Amino acid sequence: MSAGVTYPRGFRASGIVAGLKPSGRPDLALLVGDPGTTVAGVFTTNAVVAAPVTLSRARIAAGAGTAVIVNSGQANAATGARGDEDARATAVATAQRLGLAPDDVLVCSTGVIGEPVHMEELLAGLPGAVTALTAEGGEAFAEAIMTTDTVAKSAAADAAPVRVGGAAKGVGMISPNLATMLAFVTTDAAVVREDLDLLVRTELAPRFNALTVDGCTSTNDTVLLFASGAAGAPPVDRGSDAWTALASAVGAVGDALVSQLIHDAEGATTVMLVEVEGATSEADARCVATAVADSPLVKTAVFGSDPNPGRILQAVGSSGVEIAPSRIDVWIGEAHVAHEGVIPPAYFAADGLRASAEAAMQEREVTLRIRIGDGPATSRVLGCDLSYDYVKINGEYTT
Amino acid sequence: MSAGVTYPRGFRASGIVAGLKPSGRPDLALLVGDPGTTVAGVFTTNAVVAAPVTLSRARIAAGAGTAVIVNSGQANAATGARGDEDARATAVATAQRLGLAPDDVLVCSTGVIGEPVHMEELLAGLPGAVTALTAEGGEAFAEAIMTTDTVAKSAAADAAPVRVGGAAKGVGMISPNLATMLAFVTTDAAVVREDLDLLVRTELAPRFNALTVDGCTSTNDTVLLFASGAAGAPPVDRGSDAWTALASAVGAVGDALVSQLIHDAEGATTVMLVEVEGATSEADARCVATAVADSPLVKTAVFGSDPNPGRILQAVGSSGVEIAPSRIDVWIGEAHVAHEGVIPPAYFAADGLRASAEAAMQEREVTLRIRIGDGPATSRVLGCDLSYDYVKINGEYTT
Repeated sequence: MSAGVTYPRGFRASGIVAGLKPSGRPDLALLVGDPGTTVAGVFTTNAVVAAPVTLSRARIAAGAGTAVIVNSGQANAATGARGDEDARATAVATAQRLGLAPDDVLVCSTGVIGEPVHMEELLAGLPGAVTALTAEGGEAFAEAIMTTDTVAKSAAADAAPVRVGGAAKGVGMISPNLATMLAFVTTDAAVVREDLDLLVRTELAPRFNALTVDGCTSTNDTVLLFASGAAGAPPVDRGSDAWTALASAVGAVGDALVSQLIHDAEGATTVMLVEVEGATSEADARCVATAVADSPLVKTAVFGSDPNPGRILQAVGSSGVEIAPSRIDVWIGEAHVAHEGVIPPAYFAADGLRASAEAAMQEREVTLRIRIGDGPATSRVLGCDLSYDYVKINGEYTT
Repeated sequence: MSAGVTYPRGFRASGIVAGLKPSGRPDLALLVGDPGTTVAGVFTTNAVVAAPVTLSRARIAAGAGTAVIVNSGQANAATGARGDEDARATAVATAQRLGLAPDDVLVCSTGVIGEPVHMEELLAGLPGAVTALTAEGGEAFAEAIMTTDTVAKSAAADAAPVRVGGAAKGVGMISPNLATMLAFVTTDAAVVREDLDLLVRTELAPRFNALTVDGCTSTNDTVLLFASGAAGAPPVDRGSDAWTALASAVGAVGDALVSQLIHDAEGATTVMLVEVEGATSEADARCVATAVADSPLVKTAVFGSDPNPGRILQAVGSSGVEIAPSRIDVWIGEAHVAHEGVIPPAYFAADGLRASAEAAMQEREVTLRIRIGDGPATSRVLGCDLSYDYVKINGEYTT
């Protein structure tokens, strides 16, 4: 199951060292679907978008795309006309090597913003990436898309007779509405483009949008879903049992990738699951959950295993959502640390409530549950703590 | 000029150790204006407000208030009905000691959220705070309102024949729309209540709202402006020369206090002045400036003196304001690090541009100037870097 994007039939992948990264680690990745492969995708909402996002978004909108080339090291964002030309030249050269139409090649980049892609190295490395393509290349692909990731991230799931696989990267600049996060999900089911688009929007986008490492939406975020049809099974029709099984498997791969992403978040020592309930709308619930998950005061409290329920109330109150303070209840793990807007005075005594909340924060994962009223809507956001290492990693990134 | 709130005539102040803080430092402060003193104020926009905010806001709205009692150590927020009762009891006891009507006493609290105010200590300390009242008590007052502040903050200015003074506290949970920030400004000019309110809204609120330490709006933020009339000068009428001079002096005290607050921000090693220009509206400009000043990636980059202009572009693009990326120019100090949305490729070579930006970030203050178009609107936000010490201070606050 660790083959990731090549677990489904009908895909070849590779990942090689082209010399784009000063570190000398793999930095050029290629994923190619068999002829007839369909693709759908979602992209960053940042107003400042990278050149490869513009290119790939346009090609998918036009119905094209059976392969994707990914470079790590340079993000090709804030690179102007030269960046657009570099992205186009990358697609053209890749298409020539693969015998595809240029429009069939999508491009993703990740790395330092502003620095032009090291095109000489990329073009020189391309033949090797094509030669290395194999139906077992999923792991090499997942490794070559990494930037400051500490582990490669891939996943797989079955929806017999079809399979689903995936790979992802991203450890910082991750926020709802996607991130410096690239995710590639593949299936050997036969799915028409419109239905694939629906699967991306219903099974993948909400899962990746529930991630927040630092509230920073990147310029390059991309989630792509490819379907090769190579399982030989009949086309999957919307609403059929096969559709339900496929959607569930795509969702499972999404869950696995999202979990790997948050556990590898920059400097994170504790994953924070924020669950909001009782809201009048899902938007309100999401807004409160994000305010808590992104609060530096909550994040540092989790890092210090210092429950500090007042900071959670502060974050809830500052979310901009209309809330009656006397309707707010908060749980840290199992510890009920605020009831109807009030922190029980006993919390500040040694009655076990604080100790229980502290113990919950010392786990690798802590759940903060927040009820804000009697409404029907809920939301769930995955965040992490803010540690010395986050500051270290991001204070020294390009140097 | 260091007498702060007692620099203007007609005010007495004190600050004493009542035993509310485990540290044993001063924690009870009192400021009393002569009979006839008027007051105006602005308060936190957080939906979760502390009990003393509710009390003081109502009394000011009703036209009352000539004195304020401030305790540090406990914020009296998320304390429910008991918190309301404690705030009321504090005002009643203070009024009795001072021979005032209970409505004439305002209350401010700052410290840990949720923990009930240590009323026994507060009430026991009150007589001493009253006895200690003196026209030279401004410094003692400024010291007793501190929480994690490392220095007391006070300021004074002249608008002859009248004077203006002030004191403030706050180092974290500071964000536009005020903060765990308390600010007290006094003048011995004679100003009617409606005009005093105008001065608060035009000369003080915008200055304190331009501060952001961590994007976290507190439950207790309060800015109060008292006018004693004790200079003996004629009442200051709106629009007169005396009004202009007074407004300017109030603004100068506001500037001085804001500067002291941001320089003492939790863990800050560099103050970041974000100036946005060319926006179509001030709201848009403010939104972009705040997105940049609050971005953890920009803040850690400033901490590491790692200019990384791509992170500034990322933050601008994610602000939610509609912006054409090709219209964005960015300067770090004097270094023009992005032009029309593009980071000059030379930036990544050793041409001095990067070195110049690095040098600017190594100063105690750095200006990030961002042009987003040709519009008439500008905004200016004061922030700071995100350091190891911020994480340390906030990971270990209540423990």
